[in-house]
Amino acid sequence: MAGSSFGTIYRLSTFGESHGIAMGGMIDGCPAGIALDIDLIQAELDRRKPGQNKYVTERKEADEVVLLSGIFEGKTTGTPIGFTIQNKDQNSKDYSHIKDNYRPSHADFTYEKKYGIRDYRGGGRSSARETVCRVVAGAVAKQVLQNIGIEFSTYVTQIGTISMDSYDFYQKEQIEASLLRCPDKEISSKMETLISARKLAGDTLGGIIQCIINNVPVGLGEPVFDKLHAELGKAMLSINAVKGFEYGSGFSGVTMPGSEHNDLFDGSGKTKTNNSGGIQGGISNGMPIVCRVAFKPVATIMKDQESINKMGDKVTVEGKGRHDVCVVPRAVPIVESMAAITILDQYLRQKSNQL
Amino acid sequence: MAGSSFGTIYRLSTFGESHGIAMGGMIDGCPAGIALDIDLIQAELDRRKPGQNKYVTERKEADEVVLLSGIFEGKTTGTPIGFTIQNKDQNSKDYSHIKDNYRPSHADFTYEKKYGIRDYRGGGRSSARETVCRVVAGAVAKQVLQNIGIEFSTYVTQIGTISMDSYDFYQKEQIEASLLRCPDKEISSKMETLISARKLAGDTLGGIIQCIINNVPVGLGEPVFDKLHAELGKAMLSINAVKGFEYGSGFSGVTMPGSEHNDLFDGSGKTKTNNSGGIQGGISNGMPIVCRVAFKPVATIMKDQESINKMGDKVTVEGKGRHDVCVVPRAVPIVESMAAITILDQYLRQKSNQL
Amino acid sequence: MAGSSFGTIYRLSTFGESHGIAMGGMIDGCPAGIALDIDLIQAELDRRKPGQNKYVTERKEADEVVLLSGIFEGKTTGTPIGFTIQNKDQNSKDYSHIKDNYRPSHADFTYEKKYGIRDYRGGGRSSARETVCRVVAGAVAKQVLQNIGIEFSTYVTQIGTISMDSYDFYQKEQIEASLLRCPDKEISSKMETLISARKLAGDTLGGIIQCIINNVPVGLGEPVFDKLHAELGKAMLSINAVKGFEYGSGFSGVTMPGSEHNDLFDGSGKTKTNNSGGIQGGISNGMPIVCRVAFKPVATIMKDQESINKMGDKVTVEGKGRHDVCVVPRAVPIVESMAAITILDQYLRQKSNQL
Amino acid sequence: MAGSSFGTIYRLSTFGESHGIAMGGMIDGCPAGIALDIDLIQAELDRRKPGQNKYVTERKEADEVVLLSGIFEGKTTGTPIGFTIQNKDQNSKDYSHIKDNYRPSHADFTYEKKYGIRDYRGGGRSSARETVCRVVAGAVAKQVLQNIGIEFSTYVTQIGTISMDSYDFYQKEQIEASLLRCPDKEISSKMETLISARKLAGDTLGGIIQCIINNVPVGLGEPVFDKLHAELGKAMLSINAVKGFEYGSGFSGVTMPGSEHNDLFDGSGKTKTNNSGGIQGGISNGMPIVCRVAFKPVATIMKDQESINKMGDKVTVEGKGRHDVCVVPRAVPIVESMAAITILDQYLRQKSNQL
Repeated sequence: MAGSSFGTIYRLSTFGESHGIAMGGMIDGCPAGIALDIDLIQAELDRRKPGQNKYVTERKEADEVVLLSGIFEGKTTGTPIGFTIQNKDQNSKDYSHIKDNYRPSHADFTYEKKYGIRDYRGGGRSSARETVCRVVAGAVAKQVLQNIGIEFSTYVTQIGTISMDSYDFYQKEQIEASLLRCPDKEISSKMETLISARKLAGDTLGGIIQCIINNVPVGLGEPVFDKLHAELGKAMLSINAVKGFEYGSGFSGVTMPGSEHNDLFDGSGKTKTNNSGGIQGGISNGMPIVCRVAFKPVATIMKDQESINKMGDKVTVEGKGRHDVCVVPRAVPIVESMAAITILDQYLRQKSNQL
Repeated sequence: MAGSSFGTIYRLSTFGESHGIAMGGMIDGCPAGIALDIDLIQAELDRRKPGQNKYVTERKEADEVVLLSGIFEGKTTGTPIGFTIQNKDQNSKDYSHIKDNYRPSHADFTYEKKYGIRDYRGGGRSSARETVCRVVAGAVAKQVLQNIGIEFSTYVTQIGTISMDSYDFYQKEQIEASLLRCPDKEISSKMETLISARKLAGDTLGGIIQCIINNVPVGLGEPVFDKLHAELGKAMLSINAVKGFEYGSGFSGVTMPGSEHNDLFDGSGKTKTNNSGGIQGGISNGMPIVCRVAFKPVATIMKDQESINKMGDKVTVEGKGRHDVCVVPRAVPIVESMAAITILDQYLRQKSNQL
Repeated sequence: MAGSSFGTIYRLSTFGESHGIAMGGMIDGCPAGIALDIDLIQAELDRRKPGQNKYVTERKEADEVVLLSGIFEGKTTGTPIGFTIQNKDQNSKDYSHIKDNYRPSHADFTYEKKYGIRDYRGGGRSSARETVCRVVAGAVAKQVLQNIGIEFSTYVTQIGTISMDSYDFYQKEQIEASLLRCPDKEISSKMETLISARKLAGDTLGGIIQCIINNVPVGLGEPVFDKLHAELGKAMLSINAVKGFEYGSGFSGVTMPGSEHNDLFDGSGKTKTNNSGGIQGGISNGMPIVCRVAFKPVATIMKDQESINKMGDKVTVEGKGRHDVCVVPRAVPIVESMAAITILDQYLRQKSNQL
Repeated sequence: MAGSSFGTIYRLSTFGESHGIAMGGMIDGCPAGIALDIDLIQAELDRRKPGQNKYVTERKEADEVVLLSGIFEGKTTGTPIGFTIQNKDQNSKDYSHIKDNYRPSHADFTYEKKYGIRDYRGGGRSSARETVCRVVAGAVAKQVLQNIGIEFSTYVTQIGTISMDSYDFYQKEQIEASLLRCPDKEISSKMETLISARKLAGDTLGGIIQCIINNVPVGLGEPVFDKLHAELGKAMLSINAVKGFEYGSGFSGVTMPGSEHNDLFDGSGKTKTNNSGGIQGGISNGMPIVCRVAFKPVATIMKDQESINKMGDKVTVEGKGRHDVCVVPRAVPIVESMAAITILDQYLRQKSNQL
């Protein structure tokens, strides 16, 4: 059973390989009658695209989405929203030199063993290019959620060893003011320096993205397996290069005593602290939802690496081409999109829990 | 859309509240013709049950599973395996004092808001008692997986601030030699001291469990949303009190340069390092799968806490009764069960990717 | 991927074999806060049970349902409703004579080939005894639907060659006044005569059940694959011995000209005719939903039949025991249950189509 | 929960409205490594398209499929197959005259009530144009199934009152020799006469399609809800204008005594008769699968009809334009496609029932 769909009611299904004709997909279950601003969808794609500045890959791709259905006179009709995004550099390269080689910490080896066949043009389906479709569905979800006041603040808190420490809900302008989408100017500047240095060395960097969601109504999340944070966790872990997920106090909560970790209610039904990250027993409690996503350093480095080919012979995989030193800033709209898809799906699921 | 099922082909569905008549569930999609040792299922339940020793809760419950279907002459028939586990202390208590109060960092408040109704007998459906059903399904899954050589090593690596650092595959005897299921004797002893001290203070502890899975064939995990680690992550995050999940290098991988993080192949198709945690591009690569699960400290403490009731009035929630200071040792079979269910499900899913 | 669940939001999962310990299952997704009358659930099981009168099998079984979870103080809590029904005659018989034989037009042969193993105690999982669980879930669904005014009228319109022709919504009392659940007294009497004659001959009969559903709101049914009648059709075809399904004009609509078949609107939004059977474009239109279900004659006859055993040798399958000459009257609550489950599921699904 | 997907492992999801930009969809779960002949996919679309001859609609549309992903060097890669089919006559018409009117026995009224919004350009999502996507997925499924020898024979057995009576497996050439896809030349000729007469009268016709599937292995179909014929039934009932489904003896089996209806085994494991239609207990038994699908007459007639508009006022819906008098011949590839999708899905599901 293949895994190209996410969500149960608001459901995204995607297709496409990095060097095929087009990426695309469809959103099923989008509520009817929602006014959609197409420019906002494109703007989110632009936030994800390569070539935005010198700190991310310098390849230029125009990721223009074409919406094929499900929208009439500017509003959703309740029927599926199909869309495509053409690939520009399809078939343009000679891949013969990597055709039989397995790049270290890429999915070349595992895909070939899984399917008994390999699409050797770039990463194929395993490429992070697939996430363009998630950004489309996320941009639609955010517009739907805006109608009920739900808002997102997603930003970079760590690149390599440089990190900031905050649970603040930064506005989009504050985040976008940094080329690296880190709202602390000083930290952002240090991160830029680090990226420049690592780039010179032909090496790469990982990082952490934090996502805060405000105004989520109490009651979202389905016991017992589809807890809100379990769905958020799956959503984030399905993004390329993600190695870990935590919410609220997360891994650091392990060292706290229960008396300190417990979030006491104030008189209004809110809690005085938010170690729960807005989720208790898998269900939203009305506090801001806070989660963090860890990205490993980019696997494509500008250094030669030893590897093997499909015959099992030792080969050298050359480091060349233009690639991101650090994808984390570009992953911000992806993380936010997966959060929005998950929250909208759970919002719609909750509608049927009472008659 | 409710969330009481997990898995797609090997699929567990569960029901039951902590103080209702019985817990139970069914496993659909278990392959036919597998010899099952019922005693091994019961043994896993015994590893989870309260009252095993002084470091976990001293309440005694006999969690006896009754298998109702799906097994004939000692073998699975391919039809669903239904089962129940009676609750012993149902209706035995007076809950009137907590009926209207919301315990801090429990799910009392969120369940009532979600469903518009509250089962105030203990945690109801939000109680970790629900995990008995996962242990049944996990014990069955492990027996199925044994036929293809897949093995699990699951143990406690951290309680509070005391931690061990190892990626070794410890045998079950080594793990069970520690009352806390921490295979490093010295560390285990320090943890015991910490638990005793925290218990005296009426307070509680969290911890981390590591799960290592050996002999997983290459090719498990479904692109793009149902990546192997995304499914494992959801599985773990659905367990009560879990706050974070990571695999391979996890959160610490963030600080490594790509050149160091990449796992180079040796000639045999194995990799020299395992920062990938056995998973590349969401698909198993034949190396041991390694993941870690973070548990918050137990929310029920032996101290009075301020809270509110359903009318919004301030109330005091008293700390009384016998509860775990630290549930992490008892959660070891639960984590292992969720891992086994996930791996078996993905193993069965992989069967249809080629004709 | 096994098939023991039905429905998407209101979802029934069942387990159990005819001669195992118990039948059972769980309902996930039942809305919270619904008052349930347990006696009404038991009453529906009594309508299905064998031994009600001389026209159906004379075996006596008490099908007592035990509800294990999901209900508190008489109301649904939104959590899964688990239940079991003990089997009374388990292990009581010697099956050695049929152990290796395949009964004609039963599922003995197909189950053994499918799973590589056979539970030879009666029909095992293929027995119509499995439908007790459907009746439980249907009885709950009908009580939920009563809150929004939806009502069912389900009755026998044909047994063998004796048939009645009506689309009337008969009340339950009118239906139950006939031992065969055929509300036309004269026709019912002819059917009784036919059954008595066929019984003497050691032979069996099939029949047709009609189900009419009133007060279904406009808008239920999901384009394009989960059309309301497609879901109803699947629900009915999943019942043992069913060979066909039609709604509205059904097979006889084939011969009508379009000008006659089209249902013209009157001023109120109702239609003057109901060839559509209450469903247009897969979506309910507010008119009564009308469908019919065809049952083949019972496969177990009181005559010896030639067959083969698992070695491929010719054998004689003896006709003995007490079996129904015609199961159709007992299938009335099963058909109604599957209709109720389907309608409630679609009602809950429709809730998320608008924000 | 929307319903735009069909199948569980081999899973088709579709999008698109009749007068939108494009129809499209994706197939997830197609096995890897299967050689696909794209021309055969196009050929099936051509069999479905309007304007093939004077007996079906004379509108001309070129339904050219563009495959966007999932195929590399002529073979399936195991990743999703995305595709689109452009709509040619989008936005070309003035719909203001029907904008507010509800056409009798169309889905105008039900869609508007369901979604609170109406796409008034033609049938929108309710148009049978959606079935182009099914034909694409069906054509792929048939090519996959050819590798294991499974073959289809699908043809028209009845139009209006003219019918043929046969369970023969006709070859495609025999079927295509008739403009109406009725392999009995004499009957086909009578049907042509009937269609011509009905066309002159401005009226329309329904019909029946029979589908026979050979060489289906024993064991396909999942107890208890996803029986093979239940899935086939849902597949067929989801096609526009379908009013009924039966398999094997179907509705006529109702009148047979059990002794005559039972299919006795011959020595080889085959049965002497095939009243079971190749399915016993919901599982294929190795005999040809035989089912029949009833289509109502086309709702668009060339006569004026009384109706209402959205304000509830009486209006006249004019009969004009070029429409099919009878869609049944064009529905043959659609029925065959849905059968192929269902059988392939069940074939892949069966792979996980044994380890």
